[in-house]
Amino acid sequence: MNTTTSLVNHQVRLASRPVGEATRANWQFTTEPVPDAAQLADGEVLVKTLALSLDPAMRGWMNEGKSYIPPVGIGEVMRAGGIGVVVASKHPGFRPGEQVSAGLGVQEYARIGAAEAKRFGLFRIDPRLGTATQWLNVLGMPGMTGYFGLLDVGAPSAGETVVVSGAAGAVGQTVGQLAKIKGCRVVGIAGGPAKCEWVVHELGFDACIDYKAGPVRDGLKQHAPGGVDIYFDNVGGEILDAVLARINRKARIVICGAISQYNNTTPVQGPKNYLSLLVNRARMEGMVVFDYADRYPIAVAELAGYLKDGRMKSKEDVVEGGVAAFPETLARLFSGQNFGKLVLQVAHA
Amino acid sequence: MNTTTSLVNHQVRLASRPVGEATRANWQFTTEPVPDAAQLADGEVLVKTLALSLDPAMRGWMNEGKSYIPPVGIGEVMRAGGIGVVVASKHPGFRPGEQVSAGLGVQEYARIGAAEAKRFGLFRIDPRLGTATQWLNVLGMPGMTGYFGLLDVGAPSAGETVVVSGAAGAVGQTVGQLAKIKGCRVVGIAGGPAKCEWVVHELGFDACIDYKAGPVRDGLKQHAPGGVDIYFDNVGGEILDAVLARINRKARIVICGAISQYNNTTPVQGPKNYLSLLVNRARMEGMVVFDYADRYPIAVAELAGYLKDGRMKSKEDVVEGGVAAFPETLARLFSGQNFGKLVLQVAHA
Repeated sequence: MNTTTSLVNHQVRLASRPVGEATRANWQFTTEPVPDAAQLADGEVLVKTLALSLDPAMRGWMNEGKSYIPPVGIGEVMRAGGIGVVVASKHPGFRPGEQVSAGLGVQEYARIGAAEAKRFGLFRIDPRLGTATQWLNVLGMPGMTGYFGLLDVGAPSAGETVVVSGAAGAVGQTVGQLAKIKGCRVVGIAGGPAKCEWVVHELGFDACIDYKAGPVRDGLKQHAPGGVDIYFDNVGGEILDAVLARINRKARIVICGAISQYNNTTPVQGPKNYLSLLVNRARMEGMVVFDYADRYPIAVAELAGYLKDGRMKSKEDVVEGGVAAFPETLARLFSGQNFGKLVLQVAHA
Repeated sequence: MNTTTSLVNHQVRLASRPVGEATRANWQFTTEPVPDAAQLADGEVLVKTLALSLDPAMRGWMNEGKSYIPPVGIGEVMRAGGIGVVVASKHPGFRPGEQVSAGLGVQEYARIGAAEAKRFGLFRIDPRLGTATQWLNVLGMPGMTGYFGLLDVGAPSAGETVVVSGAAGAVGQTVGQLAKIKGCRVVGIAGGPAKCEWVVHELGFDACIDYKAGPVRDGLKQHAPGGVDIYFDNVGGEILDAVLARINRKARIVICGAISQYNNTTPVQGPKNYLSLLVNRARMEGMVVFDYADRYPIAVAELAGYLKDGRMKSKEDVVEGGVAAFPETLARLFSGQNFGKLVLQVAHA
């Protein structure tokens, strides 16, 4: 497959570590020739990027210092998960034309060897189960995060009240819809009346609290009058404190993220109401989706079933524009502009 | 048994709710005649107080507002657990001369009916298993708290590193000694070199960090170089944050109390490092000892065995002086002056 010869790979690299919000100045735009199939080493796969996942966690990867995975180095292609199509392969398990989910990075072509595959994954996807963008959403990392965070860490029982922040986001939509399927009352928290309306009418949540319209505490009193059994937290900050004040005995708080704190230039705001855990014999537990990798197939099978029978929707906010649009598209996450999973479309299959 | 006739019951009542630290002005000293045996209603027991337990939780009971139990009302006898001797009984299960553990309150005599017994407990104790003050310590609420908090919530495995704050206090001493018995490495945190020395040499902890001598973080690096698997938190505040920065994967943080925050006039300091729970897939869980009441006998039997065979010590700091000394004795808890479980001796058996 020599058609890739002389093609150019546009890339977005981390130029400097942001203080507060990332701006265009933190990025460097580079080009490289796309390697010829003959240039691939044994075991390598060349993947053409179709769609990239834009995630709140990206902001953390831009910081110096140890987290659950190492930071992106200065000058490195920005880390990103994506869906692509194999254009050349010296790996016996992958053939040209197959679609894969992998750590492609913010670039048009990714050359993935054994080390990259091990580190960030390289999985063949089944396009019959969902579109490329759905494979970045309910069938992808956000879906896996919601599935294992809710079911394994939250451990819901039918009849319980589940509250989820970032309800219109990627993880939030899976959590809320899945909790409904499991028989729970589900209250979302999102920003603005349009999102809240969408969460209730499109996604089928029982209620949604607009955190921009008034105190979340009041919304919880109204929409979760019996208290909160499970809180799936994607945002941290004041909203976490408001929910802590309304938890029930033996409540479970799943700490999945804290988007409100990721652009902080001051220390993270700790939950002032954490002693509610004591009073209510409740627990707060962190989760990282990679720990459940060996069970992804089980989750994908279950979630794909719900997509097929219509019990679950996979909603993406797809931005066209290729890798050049990455900086501004990422910023939309932090200003809360996205409706559903934010995806950057880089090419079409 | 008419010997109680014309005796006087000295009592300490809550006069006003403190702002910050409680002072003598928050208390009212009253007297009442001790009832005659004939005055007892069916099912009532009259108990002469021998020793009262002084606990950090008392500060919380003095505040307005809902907690795990209702606050002490203004004008009510201050709530306190204690050991006493039955002096008169119209309850078929208790006879004069028997020692009991009960919610006696800060007073010399307590009249306990079915409602009080149900609310705050009324248990016969076996003086052969321990002294009255030991029944307020390792064999009492602090011991039960340490036992179930460590074993049920912390779930230690041999070889793990357990850190406990308030190490020289009542709960801390049980937690640390029990964790040693279970095969863990145990690091205490306490205030001042004398307490730390005592925790290591008297109680047998592997190490003790003096939080007054320098950053707890540095002490953890030195004494828990492999990280922290279980943190049993009695203090909250900065120390909780320092430990959060050093936890291992799948660590368990038992939230038992937060004595550093109880006299706050500002909001509770939330743990800024709570996102370490996410990175480390760790959990933070609150516990209230009363939930384990049906298993107290099992815990008492196990702990009494350790006291008997010398594997565990029960260390009390006993203040003589009767109920009149209550305000100043309670203040010692919050200034960290006590070595071991703080007990107010009211009378001798």
